[in-house]
Amino acid sequence: MTMTEPVLSVFETLESEVRSYCRAWPVVFEHATGSRLYDEHGSGYLDFFAGAGSLNYGHNNPVLKRALLDYLERDGITHGLDMATTAKRSFLETFRSHVLEPRALNYKVMFPGPTGTNAVEAALKLARKAKGRESVVSFTNAFHGMSLGSLAVTGNAFKRAGAGVPLVHGTPMPFDNYLGGRVPDFLWFERLLEDQGSGLNHPAAVIVETIQGEGGINVARAEWLRALADLCRRRDMLLIVDDIQMGCGRTGEFFSFEEAGITPDIVTLSKSISGYGLPMSLCLFKPELDLWEPGEHNGTFRGNNPAFVTATAALETYWADGVLRERTLAQGGHVEGALRELCAEHARLGATYRGRGLVWGIEFAHKERAAAVSRRAFEHGLLIETSGPEGEVVKLLPPLTVTADELDEGLDILARSVRETA
Amino acid sequence: MTMTEPVLSVFETLESEVRSYCRAWPVVFEHATGSRLYDEHGSGYLDFFAGAGSLNYGHNNPVLKRALLDYLERDGITHGLDMATTAKRSFLETFRSHVLEPRALNYKVMFPGPTGTNAVEAALKLARKAKGRESVVSFTNAFHGMSLGSLAVTGNAFKRAGAGVPLVHGTPMPFDNYLGGRVPDFLWFERLLEDQGSGLNHPAAVIVETIQGEGGINVARAEWLRALADLCRRRDMLLIVDDIQMGCGRTGEFFSFEEAGITPDIVTLSKSISGYGLPMSLCLFKPELDLWEPGEHNGTFRGNNPAFVTATAALETYWADGVLRERTLAQGGHVEGALRELCAEHARLGATYRGRGLVWGIEFAHKERAAAVSRRAFEHGLLIETSGPEGEVVKLLPPLTVTADELDEGLDILARSVRETA
Amino acid sequence: MTMTEPVLSVFETLESEVRSYCRAWPVVFEHATGSRLYDEHGSGYLDFFAGAGSLNYGHNNPVLKRALLDYLERDGITHGLDMATTAKRSFLETFRSHVLEPRALNYKVMFPGPTGTNAVEAALKLARKAKGRESVVSFTNAFHGMSLGSLAVTGNAFKRAGAGVPLVHGTPMPFDNYLGGRVPDFLWFERLLEDQGSGLNHPAAVIVETIQGEGGINVARAEWLRALADLCRRRDMLLIVDDIQMGCGRTGEFFSFEEAGITPDIVTLSKSISGYGLPMSLCLFKPELDLWEPGEHNGTFRGNNPAFVTATAALETYWADGVLRERTLAQGGHVEGALRELCAEHARLGATYRGRGLVWGIEFAHKERAAAVSRRAFEHGLLIETSGPEGEVVKLLPPLTVTADELDEGLDILARSVRETA
Amino acid sequence: MTMTEPVLSVFETLESEVRSYCRAWPVVFEHATGSRLYDEHGSGYLDFFAGAGSLNYGHNNPVLKRALLDYLERDGITHGLDMATTAKRSFLETFRSHVLEPRALNYKVMFPGPTGTNAVEAALKLARKAKGRESVVSFTNAFHGMSLGSLAVTGNAFKRAGAGVPLVHGTPMPFDNYLGGRVPDFLWFERLLEDQGSGLNHPAAVIVETIQGEGGINVARAEWLRALADLCRRRDMLLIVDDIQMGCGRTGEFFSFEEAGITPDIVTLSKSISGYGLPMSLCLFKPELDLWEPGEHNGTFRGNNPAFVTATAALETYWADGVLRERTLAQGGHVEGALRELCAEHARLGATYRGRGLVWGIEFAHKERAAAVSRRAFEHGLLIETSGPEGEVVKLLPPLTVTADELDEGLDILARSVRETA
Repeated sequence: MTMTEPVLSVFETLESEVRSYCRAWPVVFEHATGSRLYDEHGSGYLDFFAGAGSLNYGHNNPVLKRALLDYLERDGITHGLDMATTAKRSFLETFRSHVLEPRALNYKVMFPGPTGTNAVEAALKLARKAKGRESVVSFTNAFHGMSLGSLAVTGNAFKRAGAGVPLVHGTPMPFDNYLGGRVPDFLWFERLLEDQGSGLNHPAAVIVETIQGEGGINVARAEWLRALADLCRRRDMLLIVDDIQMGCGRTGEFFSFEEAGITPDIVTLSKSISGYGLPMSLCLFKPELDLWEPGEHNGTFRGNNPAFVTATAALETYWADGVLRERTLAQGGHVEGALRELCAEHARLGATYRGRGLVWGIEFAHKERAAAVSRRAFEHGLLIETSGPEGEVVKLLPPLTVTADELDEGLDILARSVRETA
Repeated sequence: MTMTEPVLSVFETLESEVRSYCRAWPVVFEHATGSRLYDEHGSGYLDFFAGAGSLNYGHNNPVLKRALLDYLERDGITHGLDMATTAKRSFLETFRSHVLEPRALNYKVMFPGPTGTNAVEAALKLARKAKGRESVVSFTNAFHGMSLGSLAVTGNAFKRAGAGVPLVHGTPMPFDNYLGGRVPDFLWFERLLEDQGSGLNHPAAVIVETIQGEGGINVARAEWLRALADLCRRRDMLLIVDDIQMGCGRTGEFFSFEEAGITPDIVTLSKSISGYGLPMSLCLFKPELDLWEPGEHNGTFRGNNPAFVTATAALETYWADGVLRERTLAQGGHVEGALRELCAEHARLGATYRGRGLVWGIEFAHKERAAAVSRRAFEHGLLIETSGPEGEVVKLLPPLTVTADELDEGLDILARSVRETA
Repeated sequence: MTMTEPVLSVFETLESEVRSYCRAWPVVFEHATGSRLYDEHGSGYLDFFAGAGSLNYGHNNPVLKRALLDYLERDGITHGLDMATTAKRSFLETFRSHVLEPRALNYKVMFPGPTGTNAVEAALKLARKAKGRESVVSFTNAFHGMSLGSLAVTGNAFKRAGAGVPLVHGTPMPFDNYLGGRVPDFLWFERLLEDQGSGLNHPAAVIVETIQGEGGINVARAEWLRALADLCRRRDMLLIVDDIQMGCGRTGEFFSFEEAGITPDIVTLSKSISGYGLPMSLCLFKPELDLWEPGEHNGTFRGNNPAFVTATAALETYWADGVLRERTLAQGGHVEGALRELCAEHARLGATYRGRGLVWGIEFAHKERAAAVSRRAFEHGLLIETSGPEGEVVKLLPPLTVTADELDEGLDILARSVRETA
Repeated sequence: MTMTEPVLSVFETLESEVRSYCRAWPVVFEHATGSRLYDEHGSGYLDFFAGAGSLNYGHNNPVLKRALLDYLERDGITHGLDMATTAKRSFLETFRSHVLEPRALNYKVMFPGPTGTNAVEAALKLARKAKGRESVVSFTNAFHGMSLGSLAVTGNAFKRAGAGVPLVHGTPMPFDNYLGGRVPDFLWFERLLEDQGSGLNHPAAVIVETIQGEGGINVARAEWLRALADLCRRRDMLLIVDDIQMGCGRTGEFFSFEEAGITPDIVTLSKSISGYGLPMSLCLFKPELDLWEPGEHNGTFRGNNPAFVTATAALETYWADGVLRERTLAQGGHVEGALRELCAEHARLGATYRGRGLVWGIEFAHKERAAAVSRRAFEHGLLIETSGPEGEVVKLLPPLTVTADELDEGLDILARSVRETA
């Protein structure tokens, strides 16, 4: 693969310095299908990033595309605020029949605005309103969004510093395995809660990701999640699962918390919920928490109807049966095998791996190595990102619709990139 | 027009109580073109709401639609994070050539996430970072969004109460004419700033709408805006114009602040920037304020490429010349004449009107009257909303592409509705 | 008067740079009686500062001194926390019979800790608890103390900056005459309160000084105070009068708010309440506000019994009849006459005066002039301080027990100092 | 001992419900000497509470009394703000020669106002100013005061709730032995600091008591304190030791942190610093931290000269040599022996003891038992208080000047009270 000199001038001259991914991948992308992106010169890139988890069904998935084109062609409502539309009704009905009912989940559905941080802001507001307390517990290396409420429960110091105001009302607790197994789970958290002199403001809620994507593919064990849910119940705190990146089948099941057998009080979904990369998010909560007054939270783009159309098509196509789920778990097993081998081979480098379903991470003892692997992989035509507080983890996030060949191709490039950066 | 019983069950049973517009307009909408929405039974509604200002070019504008369909059909990048794409490049180039350069505006462009509140959060962060102070001044009856940072500079007590935490770091100042002309402009604000004992934390920035849409169509005079810009310069505060609802030609000029001849330090755009009702927003700022570190603010859907495509088409179609601007001002004059007559007729009821370009409001002395007019207008097939702290203002926000006949039709229904609710 | 070189070494080498008054008056004081302080070399200084209002009955008042010595000699309880003591009982009974009952004030008495800021912190806590809201309105150029709660309602930007954290939950409103009479009283405040879109968090309370001492001897008119009390009642806000500097007879009446005929919900007293310069403070409130749980607010020195003893003696000596009150008002009239003359003489310099009872200020158009006058007065043996946001006001605060001769002596030095700094 | 009906009426009718100790000890105290208080009927009470640690040298200590009477009789300056006085000079010189120099401590001395919470507020302000960060770490069950800044770093939930505003900028960490030795010291704290994704705002300072008095006589080990000091140094955080209750010889050494061999950056002193129960406090800090501007923090009673006089006498009398220190340690050994026996005897009740110098606590497994013991002790003429988050610890805090006989008397009553409440 030869790299031609990209024409990036308007990005460099006009776009803000805040841009980031485009710096690592200095090409101009033009079109995409399935697991592959193509730049303006026709070069293809295998995508193991999938829009940071927004493209679980691949780029421009043909079934969703057909539904979207049909809708647009017949002048379906595009922008609907929170008005009732046929597209929204179809989505709600399908979400109920394909997602909620089969899992016996009795959630109300809120459209809080089309981005993940909108959903998190709504979840936090609702939890605080329901409990009449302002404090929320989050976890080390959590990522929940960039608006002020979400940022206050996000761990990354660099992002937090961007707030320009002190971030308050949130307290971090250790995520699963944060202290290397040297401390019993929740020993500290529970002690703070039971002790009337601990100084912890009694939290309204706990917000957690079952797997921390931005935080470095930190996987919470099912028993840890169960213990957390139990702690929340016993100590009168609402449990919010932020399933924005790990939901919509990324771990196999539709919701990432299903494996643990817990039922959160509030769930946020976004990224792959529209299925087509279109902005959309949901906030789900138990009916007794539906304490909103009409219009108490709103947002211009909360009724992004084209996204409802592709979301409905995605649910009908992939969640009417267990095929995708089985496939994801099987492919996940395949990835795990490959990573086991890779890390064994590179044991002397201190590479370790972890993951579940189709989300995996390789952590390098030499932290800069991860970025080097990512750079080298790009040269070999693979888009793969790093995560973790110091970018020390290479993150695998292929579309769930990736083929076996594509998966092997990507894993091969990855292995080669690791070798070449040794 | 006869009303059939709408089938709303899934909205009522599954959707959260937070839904609002759908309560006032209890039909299920299906498709839309230009200035008209149609419900599932084929009934048409003239739209003087325009997606709360998101549909300045009408529903499913055919030129934009063609561009969007072409892009989707050829599998253009849908979801692009902040990667360089051909669609984004076209947008940036067109925004520069059609918007910035003709107005001699030297702004950097940031994609802060696709909703208005994302843009406001980014603007506030940047202002605080640039000035190293956390305090921001906003105005009475301001509306800037629902996430925690934006909500803190929003006036509405009902929305603010939803935060569940005290909203701090913002101080309200009187908007133009707030005190009925009994107090010299900025007397209080300037006194607070010059007095070292006033107790006002020195603000990093002032955030203002040139016309407050949600606040009740409160129109700031050009001289008031100029005096504000001057105050900001003299007192070392950044001026942020939130042009989310009033930008993109709503007042005639592309930016609503052009008429006043001011150049804000930071500008937020959203709503009609994509032109097709698709989620998109921009944060513009002077180059010396581009102090972001790469990735310091991010967001999953900040690269909503289909929106870039329609945005580009909209700029090329409507902002290559002054036709739309002229048309908007002319139509605005027509509306003004109609409202003058209507309010004269109803002088005994204390109805007054105000506006600029194609945004107008009628305020009723009997505050409940506005809701009654809106309800009656709906029965006559006109979608028209209320605004203001107590919903006492009927708000006219037709698409800028509304035809003369449609405008007259809407104004007739409005006049009839006012009469019938006397 | 000749100045000898003071021996300040330990102050300069060991004491923190935060010290301030000692810089302006570079002598070492040793003893004091009545209106006069003496330095270690025996030089006397007429005291028109009176411990910033803490020595209304003069230094080492002989009646109070006798009571204090008796108490100490017989080993009366010195440190009593909030235990019942005979000294505390006597104080409470005397405060009831000499202060509360004659004024028909039905207040509960709280000992919140012995400093003014302790009392203000307690008042703010109680108001917030009673109303369930965190917001408090204070006034431009208010001074309420240096601990975090009090500082947040204090105006001085220099003091506020010392907090090291953003000071929140307080909003400044214009004090009487702040805008030079160009705006109707409370126009802005009331508009903010009545408008549901104003952005002002509904305050739990308003805290006010009837005369702002540190703020520059700004005197609120009686009708302004009455309008404020009325506004508080109508808008469900508690009225806190901080009478720490202006209470205990400084304005003639025991409480400075008596002249206006208002009854605040909460009153703070400190400074001269012990009468002997000993640390003591009180928080008074209407019985229905006594919502404290036992021990919910405490403090080690809230039972400073020697202060109770001198406080009781002071009340019995000076507040059993109206003699002190009459004397204060008469002397105040005398001061006013002298200042009228002085300011007339210096009209070309823009000196103006204001005050009430025995608290007066002269404001100079050339702001640095005030400090120069204070320095020159010190050289002539008069201690007199400046106040105001830029120290532009010379402040007269003699003991209420000042003799006619001492008053004239001080006024003469003042006049001379003004002349000499012209 | 017979109990007569106390005459408490004015306390019950006029004083606020916030009063607390007087409820447990329903007598009216009149005078006191050494270790004994007497009520108005002449009944004596042995005092193992010592003004919550404010009377280390006993009630009305004759040496200090003489100095105080002399000073008052010769009309020494009573109220001095921060003016230079001979009394203040003597104190500063004596504090330097008797406290700082012998310990090679190079601290600047600040008089921040006469109460402990004034000193803590000043310490927190200074730390935040010095580091330019607002976050402070405190410890579980810490007690630092009742004003807003101090309360935010205090653990007790009941006291915190009194604030009426969310308490922010503080994060609790586990005090020594908080997790029962199951977790390595500072494992969690250090991990939070080293991890850029932890979500902990980098603290400006850590504030700690070496022994938590109000928190339940929790004794930090010397090695824990050393590790904390080391952590602070390595992680660029200031170490504030709040020695308000444990300083002034309570643990043997003048400062409680001396035993650990650490040198805090900032130290707060109050309670027994005046020696006579008079309000006084100090804030000490390293010279390079003396970043205050003149007057940036002030307070009316920061120059309580009578307290300086007794403080000077106390230092001269008790800290010119090591006699008091030796005596305290010896007596402490005696107390420890008695408690060891008592707890052994009552092992089946789960009573445990802990302490150092002359501060000791007995914790009862049946938490209500502590209050019962305290009540019974009072009936036997011993004043002894409880502490801990649920009042589960009986606290021994006799004057350091207690005689051997008094100590035995008190220990006997204690043992009897424990037995009688079995």
